[in-house]
Amino acid sequence: MALKHKGLEFEALPWRFTEKEAIAPYKSSTVPVLVDGDQSVYDSWAIALYLDEVYPSRPRLFGGTEARALADFFCQWAVKSVHPAILRVLILDIYEKLHARDKAYFRESREKRFGMTLKQFAGDQKGAVAAFRGALEPVRPVLVQNAFLSGNGPGFADYILFGMFQWARTVSPTRLLEPDDPIYAWRERLLKMYDGYAWKAKGYPVWA
Amino acid sequence: MALKHKGLEFEALPWRFTEKEAIAPYKSSTVPVLVDGDQSVYDSWAIALYLDEVYPSRPRLFGGTEARALADFFCQWAVKSVHPAILRVLILDIYEKLHARDKAYFRESREKRFGMTLKQFAGDQKGAVAAFRGALEPVRPVLVQNAFLSGNGPGFADYILFGMFQWARTVSPTRLLEPDDPIYAWRERLLKMYDGYAWKAKGYPVWA
Repeated sequence: MALKHKGLEFEALPWRFTEKEAIAPYKSSTVPVLVDGDQSVYDSWAIALYLDEVYPSRPRLFGGTEARALADFFCQWAVKSVHPAILRVLILDIYEKLHARDKAYFRESREKRFGMTLKQFAGDQKGAVAAFRGALEPVRPVLVQNAFLSGNGPGFADYILFGMFQWARTVSPTRLLEPDDPIYAWRERLLKMYDGYAWKAKGYPVWA
Repeated sequence: MALKHKGLEFEALPWRFTEKEAIAPYKSSTVPVLVDGDQSVYDSWAIALYLDEVYPSRPRLFGGTEARALADFFCQWAVKSVHPAILRVLILDIYEKLHARDKAYFRESREKRFGMTLKQFAGDQKGAVAAFRGALEPVRPVLVQNAFLSGNGPGFADYILFGMFQWARTVSPTRLLEPDDPIYAWRERLLKMYDGYAWKAKGYPVWA
């Protein structure tokens, strides 16, 4: 979404958890990795900063230093509060859809991180969805007042949160939002942007 | 702090919880209330929007629509996540320092809101301080990268969080932050601003 925002052409390469050797040349063990000519950057935040720095004349992901610091806070909050909550909803669906080659690595690394089995971490799924919706509480009043978290148009804060929803629909049919939730309409706006780029991606329909 | 930021002269009027008649003419039952000539506004967020709208040529509390929407999110988060956590730390100190006339009102209204006694709400105070520090987690990486939550200089997001610390030190000697916490240095920067305006206010020293 950040590359679409910048209007930059790109090729997206499918990648599996255990294909560490494919990204090792770029000094990363995790995705995303951006390769731009002879430059490479990993980590979504670092990639966003890189894009605005190297392509300053294209639409900005951050409106200025103030918006960038506040977007940094938003991303920190999303990673610490929303990501664990959505992961609990998705974890068993992710595991189920993984390539056989990745299953052992995924299970081992995540069970070590959580200190419990995937099934224990997933727990009661109705409760997990309710907790995920609850974690999003501070977002709602902002989206009642503004079309996007970044105001009139989307910025990097929008893409960070939207990315979690897009990740969800690639693996899980779970209905994450009710249609009367202001976050539902916001997600729809982002799904439709850039000629429906996110909407056309493989995944379960969000209205399921 | 918002008025200092705008460079506007003002008179601050002491006020007690039960002095509802003093703010009734301004259609509010809670503070803050700003009276500006024949205009009045209540609620800190509404006051901040008013100040930037009516005094656009003075320093802005919000750098633009993007920063304003992201600051809105920050305030929603602070009110929902930080305020309840700091209130648990402060509640008994607040009650103790209230004017006799306000004690019954405060106890009744708060015990009704919490669904428990003030003492039960305060609970284990070591745990309350730890929970408060934990609630601030997403702020720290931002303040490692930036002098203020709003980037190079303070904005409304900074003042909203700082106001909670300033409120704390007017009533409580509790040490809220350790000196090696990046939030500690940020608070100090704000205490020193505007010729030490916040630092000179009555209260316990923060280095206690």
